[in-house]
Amino acid sequence: MIRFAEQRFLGNVRKTPLLNSSFIDDIASRRVWVKAEALQHTGSFKFRGGWSAISSLSEETRQRGVIAFSSGNHAQGVALAARMHNISAVIVMPADAPSLKIDNTRALGAEVVLYDRETEDREEIGQTIAKERNLTLIKPYDEPQVIAGQGTCGLEIAEQALQLGVDAAEVLVCCGGGGLTSGIALALEATAPNMKVRPVEPVNFDDVARSLVSGEPQTNAKTTGGICDAIITPTPGTITFPIMKRLCGAGIVIPEEDCLRAMSVAFTRLKIVLEPGGAIALAAALYHKDVISSEEVICIASGGNVDPKIFKQALIDYPCK
Amino acid sequence: MIRFAEQRFLGNVRKTPLLNSSFIDDIASRRVWVKAEALQHTGSFKFRGGWSAISSLSEETRQRGVIAFSSGNHAQGVALAARMHNISAVIVMPADAPSLKIDNTRALGAEVVLYDRETEDREEIGQTIAKERNLTLIKPYDEPQVIAGQGTCGLEIAEQALQLGVDAAEVLVCCGGGGLTSGIALALEATAPNMKVRPVEPVNFDDVARSLVSGEPQTNAKTTGGICDAIITPTPGTITFPIMKRLCGAGIVIPEEDCLRAMSVAFTRLKIVLEPGGAIALAAALYHKDVISSEEVICIASGGNVDPKIFKQALIDYPCK
Repeated sequence: MIRFAEQRFLGNVRKTPLLNSSFIDDIASRRVWVKAEALQHTGSFKFRGGWSAISSLSEETRQRGVIAFSSGNHAQGVALAARMHNISAVIVMPADAPSLKIDNTRALGAEVVLYDRETEDREEIGQTIAKERNLTLIKPYDEPQVIAGQGTCGLEIAEQALQLGVDAAEVLVCCGGGGLTSGIALALEATAPNMKVRPVEPVNFDDVARSLVSGEPQTNAKTTGGICDAIITPTPGTITFPIMKRLCGAGIVIPEEDCLRAMSVAFTRLKIVLEPGGAIALAAALYHKDVISSEEVICIASGGNVDPKIFKQALIDYPCK
Repeated sequence: MIRFAEQRFLGNVRKTPLLNSSFIDDIASRRVWVKAEALQHTGSFKFRGGWSAISSLSEETRQRGVIAFSSGNHAQGVALAARMHNISAVIVMPADAPSLKIDNTRALGAEVVLYDRETEDREEIGQTIAKERNLTLIKPYDEPQVIAGQGTCGLEIAEQALQLGVDAAEVLVCCGGGGLTSGIALALEATAPNMKVRPVEPVNFDDVARSLVSGEPQTNAKTTGGICDAIITPTPGTITFPIMKRLCGAGIVIPEEDCLRAMSVAFTRLKIVLEPGGAIALAAALYHKDVISSEEVICIASGGNVDPKIFKQALIDYPCK
């Protein structure tokens, strides 16, 4: 499925570069490769999953349109993929989402339906609209074609790393519901079996790390309040968790402050823009080297949809020297 | 020479991506492609020229080491290329250059020789050291192998654009002494003859634009005081100017403020970090559309070595909506 998803991408989904910097290697005490997935369309890997899911539908189903729930990167990824397929998209977003994200999603051609986070249930609203209008729901991670789309990132990593002479590495992946993590793990199982995926999560939102320890899905006590909003989810997906359990190494849990420091390093040394959740894998490589054992490490850097004020804070409070 | 330079790059010089965004197309009223050369090693295209020049030397000459004069991007490009060739590099830098740039150049393994901009002449210091130690001088732009190295960026543009179905375009190039501009113009003459290079310079430092009008090399009244420091030079090169005169369209001259606005757009829409001089070609496409006539436009975006304070100013004073 991942290979077929990749075939449906040609000319539409970007192959993102694998970057490095000797300054980063020096901090991390090993060779670090950064998969700059923030350079993907709409600023995150979510466009891969959105494109994969929409392009896999039958022509008739696709023409009826799609619907998604998201306040952030999945919203924009699905909206752009829908527009590029010339179909309509409805995105259910909380009314208190940042106005820029709502404006962007609308500017990408989607119909935005707002709901009140306190009093309404987004799934209920979405299911009602989906039934009324006969739309296909594209879930953010617990959906096979979405996982296959995110997995194409793993195929690229295997190919690009091999060209650089790297065939064994720990691959650090920013992890929310596990769509990207499980997709990359499946791709690497087939194409680079000496690479091991390690999910990376923020402190207080480490459901996947705890689930991998206990062997059963664990839940976060809360799902709001962190700056790594893009990767905060209540619990691992029912499809993604068994894949992660079978293929991933131990989870890594990172304080928010280290994400800000890593954003500043990515700005200075790689010239890429990362949001806090998008910098968390790089933060693990830079500041938690003791929990990594491989000589080479590959970090996913995605997404880059960050508020200028938070970005400014990272640059000023944590200057990279 | 450009093709041979490219052959010497394999695995060492990055092929940078050609990015785009529908939000940028909407502002520019045409399709815009951005060659994200800030993602090159050391954050600018200068690494291409440095690598090309050093790799073209005979083994014996190369082993004696190289020397360069620069306070910025050329310094870092030559320093890293020298280190990757396992040879020594001396970089002559002004004592009042930003300490981060001096530290970076040293961290890349170069010996930094500081001089007093008020009382000493950098060329004299450099020539003395070059003779004493028998080093090869690598000039920043008026040097055939440097021009050939920068020209490889043009080969990539032709190849990448053609894959996207684009064979005719104006190609906007950030222009100082003209090494990158003339190199790209030569590469496109051979590989994409329907593409026309347009040099882009800041207001008050538009020596190339005026030289192209008059047909003779013109000089800037001053060479300090602008935020686009990386592309401020006194006059076009003696090798680069005849090439630009033969191949380039009219120069485009841009106010500094538009570079800051373009930096903010590149941050929000492309997730890349640009310094003011590196954003000037994108600024031309975004805010000076009337001086461009082609349906498609390709902008070089390089470099990305920007002070966090200036970057912060761009984001806060010119928010992208």
